Amino acid sequence: MTVRKFALTDVSFARSPGQDGDVFAANVIDQRHGAPVSIGYGRYAPNQSLVETIAVDDVMVVLQGQLSVSSDGSTVTAGAGEIVHMPKGSAVTIRSHDEGAVTAYVTYPHWQQASG
Amino acid sequence: MTVRKFALTDVSFARSPGQDGDVFAANVIDQRHGAPVSIGYGRYAPNQSLVETIAVDDVMVVLQGQLSVSSDGSTVTAGAGEIVHMPKGSAVTIRSHDEGAVTAYVTYPHWQQASG
Repeated sequence: MTVRKFALTDVSFARSPGQDGDVFAANVIDQRHGAPVSIGYGRYAPNQSLVETIAVDDVMVVLQGQLSVSSDGSTVTAGAGEIVHMPKGSAVTIRSHDEGAVTAYVTYPHWQQASG
Repeated sequence: MTVRKFALTDVSFARSPGQDGDVFAANVIDQRHGAPVSIGYGRYAPNQSLVETIAVDDVMVVLQGQLSVSSDGSTVTAGAGEIVHMPKGSAVTIRSHDEGAVTAYVTYPHWQQASG
């Protein structure tokens, strides 16, 4: 494997599995590439919500907009440049606001295999 | 562990080990927290360079400024919102430019243990 750079303009988004809202993911590194982590971009249309039990350790870096993540009765809201860590096993509701959101994410291990 | 949010304003930077340039790191999640990944922010003063063999899989999300990463004779340059993946074992030179840079990073496993 070599050092690689990725940009939002390089990727193709697909609807996140198991939900029918306008929430999309685009892996740039995953189980196909031999690294232990999956890396990608996420895109949330305005005012969407996604309810999920996180099957992997999931780190989101908010690049645009804002996301609120509720878990165990408390909520954190992250804007551009802020990081949200969702430990494996967390039962979360992720909500976007009026402006939608774009994230970069890293998961260990690969989320597509863990949630498959 | 619970869902947590981190902001650049929350952290305390320390000089990255093994180098004397103005390159700083601030872990927000690491081996003390029970997660498999380390998460943090990086800060590069203008025109610094860091030469390193990466002991872990290291993902940098550039938040401000630009970084160039050279490895195996080729160089990638990433700006705000772009992601650089440095696979474990990569021999890299990371350079900041006139405006310096701020990153969010995720490593698997914990970089402080691997490079210790």
